[in-house]
Amino acid sequence: MESTTTLADTTVVITPEELRRHWQGHRDLTRRVIVAFPEKEFFEYSIGGMRPFAGMIKELLGIAAPGIREIAGGTTNELNEEFADVTTKEGILALWDAATEEIDRLWATIPVSRFRERIVAFGQYEGTVWSTLFYFVDNEIHHRGQGYVYLRSLGIEPPMFWDRK
Amino acid sequence: MESTTTLADTTVVITPEELRRHWQGHRDLTRRVIVAFPEKEFFEYSIGGMRPFAGMIKELLGIAAPGIREIAGGTTNELNEEFADVTTKEGILALWDAATEEIDRLWATIPVSRFRERIVAFGQYEGTVWSTLFYFVDNEIHHRGQGYVYLRSLGIEPPMFWDRK
Repeated sequence: MESTTTLADTTVVITPEELRRHWQGHRDLTRRVIVAFPEKEFFEYSIGGMRPFAGMIKELLGIAAPGIREIAGGTTNELNEEFADVTTKEGILALWDAATEEIDRLWATIPVSRFRERIVAFGQYEGTVWSTLFYFVDNEIHHRGQGYVYLRSLGIEPPMFWDRK
Repeated sequence: MESTTTLADTTVVITPEELRRHWQGHRDLTRRVIVAFPEKEFFEYSIGGMRPFAGMIKELLGIAAPGIREIAGGTTNELNEEFADVTTKEGILALWDAATEEIDRLWATIPVSRFRERIVAFGQYEGTVWSTLFYFVDNEIHHRGQGYVYLRSLGIEPPMFWDRK
């Protein structure tokens, strides 16, 4: 990622490469939270009428790779969070890992000037590229935190929140 | 915040002022989640052996203002999350609002070059200033997401996650 090597100057808060690593560090933790769930509870367990953790993860899968495609390529897609045919943790993890690779591959093609441009993510959500990416990360942390409560109430110890790549 | 007006160039992902607003937007949402809790449940309600939401909020109070003091002033403090004498939501919200003002006041004194410097937050946690601030925000989102599950399981609708200043 050549662009980042010129950015570590005193007017910069965070470089594009640091933001990519930050997001992927969170995604790696979320992956370990998926792994921590028993198969059945991942798809069925719920508290307070909320979605099972699988539903939240499908939302995150619908956002991550399609979102980065829009940011890198300028194409707009409608949000799809269904993945109705994916009914196993193994299938979910395969989609997760494919998204991890796609994010890394497409991120390398994003010019640094892109981060301050305005976009309408999924044809609906107005913001800058950076604020859209922050939303992706924040939304993932938010739902993963909910998954921690599900795990604790199942008597399962989640991975440590601070243990990220 | 004068420093930010010179930063909106094409090599910048996010300015210090944007990061301040991002954090304070999250803190405003967290405040509304505190308000949404009934008084008794805020201090006592728990799922899966986790802390009541008041305990999580006291952790966040122990981090935010003391953390920004360390970043702005270079002083190091030990982490204090006790606030044992604060036993009402009103008292918690007063501390929250005081921290909001202190963050704004001290943030304005942080030079942009500070964000890439290395610190040992609370004498324990090594990182850069930016990564430390991201940790503060991420940790708040994580625990607030857990508060959402507490509220839902109490039959209370939380504020919308995307509704931030």
